[in-house]
Amino acid sequence: MAIIVQKFGGTSVADAEKIRRAAERVIKAVKNGYQVVVVASARGKQTDELIADALELNPNPPKRELDQLLSTGEQQSVSLFAMALDAMGYDAISFTGGQIRMITDSDHTKARIKSVDAERIHKQLDKGRIVIVAGFQGIDENENITTLGRGGSDTTAVVLAAALGAEQCEIYTDVDGIHTTDPRIFKNAAKVEQISYDEMLELTSLGAGVIYTRAVECGKNYDVKIHVRSSTEEKKGTIITHEVPQMEGVVVSGATVQKDMAKIGLVGVDNVPGNAAKIFACLAKAKVVVNDIVQTEVSPEKANLSFMIGISDLAAAKKAVEQIKDDIHCERIFVRDDIAEISVVGVGMRTHYGVADKMFSALAETKVNIDSITTSEIRISCIVSKDQAEQALEAVCVAFELDKPAEERAKKD
Amino acid sequence: MAIIVQKFGGTSVADAEKIRRAAERVIKAVKNGYQVVVVASARGKQTDELIADALELNPNPPKRELDQLLSTGEQQSVSLFAMALDAMGYDAISFTGGQIRMITDSDHTKARIKSVDAERIHKQLDKGRIVIVAGFQGIDENENITTLGRGGSDTTAVVLAAALGAEQCEIYTDVDGIHTTDPRIFKNAAKVEQISYDEMLELTSLGAGVIYTRAVECGKNYDVKIHVRSSTEEKKGTIITHEVPQMEGVVVSGATVQKDMAKIGLVGVDNVPGNAAKIFACLAKAKVVVNDIVQTEVSPEKANLSFMIGISDLAAAKKAVEQIKDDIHCERIFVRDDIAEISVVGVGMRTHYGVADKMFSALAETKVNIDSITTSEIRISCIVSKDQAEQALEAVCVAFELDKPAEERAKKD
Repeated sequence: MAIIVQKFGGTSVADAEKIRRAAERVIKAVKNGYQVVVVASARGKQTDELIADALELNPNPPKRELDQLLSTGEQQSVSLFAMALDAMGYDAISFTGGQIRMITDSDHTKARIKSVDAERIHKQLDKGRIVIVAGFQGIDENENITTLGRGGSDTTAVVLAAALGAEQCEIYTDVDGIHTTDPRIFKNAAKVEQISYDEMLELTSLGAGVIYTRAVECGKNYDVKIHVRSSTEEKKGTIITHEVPQMEGVVVSGATVQKDMAKIGLVGVDNVPGNAAKIFACLAKAKVVVNDIVQTEVSPEKANLSFMIGISDLAAAKKAVEQIKDDIHCERIFVRDDIAEISVVGVGMRTHYGVADKMFSALAETKVNIDSITTSEIRISCIVSKDQAEQALEAVCVAFELDKPAEERAKKD
Repeated sequence: MAIIVQKFGGTSVADAEKIRRAAERVIKAVKNGYQVVVVASARGKQTDELIADALELNPNPPKRELDQLLSTGEQQSVSLFAMALDAMGYDAISFTGGQIRMITDSDHTKARIKSVDAERIHKQLDKGRIVIVAGFQGIDENENITTLGRGGSDTTAVVLAAALGAEQCEIYTDVDGIHTTDPRIFKNAAKVEQISYDEMLELTSLGAGVIYTRAVECGKNYDVKIHVRSSTEEKKGTIITHEVPQMEGVVVSGATVQKDMAKIGLVGVDNVPGNAAKIFACLAKAKVVVNDIVQTEVSPEKANLSFMIGISDLAAAKKAVEQIKDDIHCERIFVRDDIAEISVVGVGMRTHYGVADKMFSALAETKVNIDSITTSEIRISCIVSKDQAEQALEAVCVAFELDKPAEERAKKD
């Protein structure tokens, strides 16, 4: 019998009525002949409430105890979910992370999964039961409860789908799938039927609040087909899967804008070996994550260097580079926090030319100036002024016809 | 180093302020040189709220899932308790029942403890940590979470005190100890300084809401000194312990009234071997707990038989005896639900005479008629009319001077 994993987030199990509705989705899959494993998050705002309870007692609660506390949220929802299925006439059993030996490292509040006892789940499925597993949590080698950090329930679901050899992992959410771009900016954004793991990873912000990067990475590593779909509507959502030939026909799968970024530039740095290493060692020590590093030679003796960071890291990054400014004979440091990054992503770029040209033209026509450009194999990003971010995204979306379904665009290319 | 176990009930950990106050009691014991193990119940009304959540989804929730749900209440309070101690500068670690291998049978919602891993707790205590254990819960051999039923946290505390060889087990509550009788009826009821396990077991109703019978039984079996005391006041409460010689000086330790009882009488039953067995087999089958059985011969051929039951079992018991009425040739069945039982209890009765006399005289003087009398080695109980129950109790309390401390009464006897 084929297995399916269904993950329901906090909003999908927020109250009795919603749990019952989610249970109906599960029963539908059972009736379609599947063995079903459900992964549930904590109900509604419960995790936030528990964190508030903790902070009232301790502004800096020990992480082990925080995990011990937060893991109760999922434990409650899975037992309630099992009760709902029982009331509807279906045999169900709930498990905590510990009960299925979801073993993680001991990095509390952001633990990584090492292994899981799929056997215990198979045994229950083979008895004809629906298995409900608490997302977001595991235990370390010493039986301490751990949690997986933000989006942990998605990761639990994908890891279980991999371990159980499930046909697919369904992520139920309050939107109907992934869109070609943010519909709040480009209101005609089309729903994406199918997208590759790599594209999804480049389009992180499109998945924001829907599916977490770590779960997509996991899906990629274990080749788990992930189906992001609506918990209230029946229709198909977005399938995230490995790259299939027909994807190449689509040049651009999606476009994003990121506004929470800043750029730091170091002008006139001594062009000697080891200076770049010094700079980034210094930033790593300050725990700043750096993206899009660009170095250009301005003379045989001097180079300019710039990089992007999250805007929340700006103060720490600035302090870090100022400390080594003299050491590397940097003439001047500049900071830009008035920028945004527009990106287009598509595996089809590997085999199609003219993508960059089309993007730059679209930006030029709408009078958006490009500060700088970076690319990866399947992505082109332009840094533009923050106040032009939305018109820039819209121009790009129109140019690549992101309001149309992928099939239609594929035919034309 | 001596170990002390401190148990805090739901009202003592109901909110952040109360958790902090309880934590201060713990720190005081640490400063007095003890290694401290805390047992905590779920916060305030949380268990009731979780039960309501369950019933909303399933009027008859599977017991395994109910235990999975309810055990989260204690898990939350112990992690919060540990966070509070950490904030106050003390190293603490919380454990669920499962984490200290509190192994029980699989009788969900009323499981019995089989063993506990004291080693894991000793290891933490020896690191200088305060150990906080979730009361009321354990796991069975298959890692299913179980709960111990009403008063389970008291039982957890006493079992841990036994397993750890603790000096005593302190039960913190919102009263200052056990009283000689119910202060709502006899307002001058004295606090009992010291009482034996056997007396406490006979005086169940005096412990109602303060300490549970099963915990007292456990204390008796493992000889754990139990100290019932106020969570808000510093003064000593009531010590429940094995019988010590000075207890014998006190004839009566306490008096109770029970109003939730009924009496069933079978008049003119055939006086042949096997009839009594038939009656009580029939009641056992109906799951009715029977007390105070009295049989009297009225003629060589006929006997009268009566027994007491909890009033909630009355309908079931009546139905059961009516079914075998003809089989045992019973002439008539009578039922009394307008009765109450007045009891006096004391280990001193074993060596003192005149107790029954004093009790009956007190009742006679206040014009209370005695329906029937039953006794055990340390108890005398009289069945009286329910509408005279309170004046009967008061008369008995006055006769035995239960408004005075035990020492004073002991001297006079």
